[in-house]
Amino acid sequence: MKVIWNSEIVDRSEVTIDPEDRGYQFGDGIYEVIRAYNKEFFCLDEHLDRFFSSAEKIEMHVPYTKNELKHLANRLLSETGVNTGNLYLQLTRGVASPRNHMYPDASVLPMLTGTFTETERDQQMLDKGIHTIVTEDIRWLKCDIKMISLLGNIMVKHEAHKKNAYEAILHRDGIVTECSAANVAIVKNGVIHTHPDGNLILPGITKLVWKRCAERLGIPVVEEPFSLDELYNADEIFCSSTTMEVMPVKKLDNKVFFSETAGSVTRKLQEAYKAEIEQCCGKLPVH
Amino acid sequence: MKVIWNSEIVDRSEVTIDPEDRGYQFGDGIYEVIRAYNKEFFCLDEHLDRFFSSAEKIEMHVPYTKNELKHLANRLLSETGVNTGNLYLQLTRGVASPRNHMYPDASVLPMLTGTFTETERDQQMLDKGIHTIVTEDIRWLKCDIKMISLLGNIMVKHEAHKKNAYEAILHRDGIVTECSAANVAIVKNGVIHTHPDGNLILPGITKLVWKRCAERLGIPVVEEPFSLDELYNADEIFCSSTTMEVMPVKKLDNKVFFSETAGSVTRKLQEAYKAEIEQCCGKLPVH
Repeated sequence: MKVIWNSEIVDRSEVTIDPEDRGYQFGDGIYEVIRAYNKEFFCLDEHLDRFFSSAEKIEMHVPYTKNELKHLANRLLSETGVNTGNLYLQLTRGVASPRNHMYPDASVLPMLTGTFTETERDQQMLDKGIHTIVTEDIRWLKCDIKMISLLGNIMVKHEAHKKNAYEAILHRDGIVTECSAANVAIVKNGVIHTHPDGNLILPGITKLVWKRCAERLGIPVVEEPFSLDELYNADEIFCSSTTMEVMPVKKLDNKVFFSETAGSVTRKLQEAYKAEIEQCCGKLPVH
Repeated sequence: MKVIWNSEIVDRSEVTIDPEDRGYQFGDGIYEVIRAYNKEFFCLDEHLDRFFSSAEKIEMHVPYTKNELKHLANRLLSETGVNTGNLYLQLTRGVASPRNHMYPDASVLPMLTGTFTETERDQQMLDKGIHTIVTEDIRWLKCDIKMISLLGNIMVKHEAHKKNAYEAILHRDGIVTECSAANVAIVKNGVIHTHPDGNLILPGITKLVWKRCAERLGIPVVEEPFSLDELYNADEIFCSSTTMEVMPVKKLDNKVFFSETAGSVTRKLQEAYKAEIEQCCGKLPVH
């Protein structure tokens, strides 16, 4: 299996991380997950822009240009020979010894790793939707940074899992923010509501795309904080992320939102999102 | 240099971490920093108890007994031949591939690493005190867990550093919580005030010790939330942590709290804390 390791494509077995890599001792790093369909990345530019933006927010220098990263990503995709899957790209602040909270000086080189994992689109899941729970947003106050200090995220994801749900929809003091690894939106009377960008949510790339679709379809989108009450009383709920695309929420805690088919706004966005993928990456298989 | 790697003491150069260790991709791990003086650990029991408590809070199994960890710690201390320094002990949830937010099943073995770094007591710093800044507590809502997802902590520490300060004193909506890597307390009219334990601060081992000292000395301690106003108007401020011990705050933003000698309550606690160390680890050098 081939992977990215700094500026090279190497065999997975060659990659070793130092125990004093700041990614390992401080969660001091950033990442992106980028989807490829039909051997073609989707929204690669947008993901890399966010990668640089996250790095800037934690004052970490990315020792590569955007084009160099694109080139590496495409080389890896090509060398794996995989059709459809996820590129996981991570950059940590590198190895600094002895352990010290303070950022190391510029002589310490950030550590880039990247893997590509084959993952088919799951049309059945996209049709059936997911079960979700509501829980408290326990994360930090810089959720706009896509960083690897993810314990808060995985704890709530695990909580969902224990309750036989796929995702946790989070709230801060009754205001819905997002999910553990996705944005969330509700539909009420034909209008989409989703939390505005800022420090409490990740600026989703998939959200960017479905907002463009909604605009084209003439579906109004309101980006303002909304409450748990509005969530429970929504006509439709959907999550969005790179790996989930536009995913209908079938069940929230004990409330079932649809039996066979997701609400019409969610379905329209799913179709439009799929069309966006196909425009970039070519025809997707019909399941 | 010898280090702990799972159940062994090995040479530092032998230790390699897998890029899909969950510590590296999710900050999914816990740690302790334990001080040794005169080849003797101080509060080793208390630190290991907190280690197990942190693990339990994130539902991570520690595949060692407390006695096994004590044995490993003491073996490392002995093999390094160092007199005074810090043991850094870390346990992550281990290697799970491919990357997945969900906790892996019990077949995945957590990864233990530990290093011992020589660090002398800095009596001069303890006398002179430190400069601090006040900044927002941007961390998550489970600060009682000593975990390695520390980006929030290191960002505020870095902010302090950029302002020529050693520590950042944090507040949430005007309520003082703790520092980036220490607890904080104020003295007003002979009474010590510090934030109560709970989800907003780490239950400090050093705090445990100085509270015991304060009780013996007849100094009242009030563990209730206090405000930024009370912080700025305190008679004395001190931080406490394993590596800093009881550390006087000389300066907070632009306000200087003392010129030559820290306030009397802080000094009494420093002396009593030193006596506690000496009782456990033997006479400390006079500087």
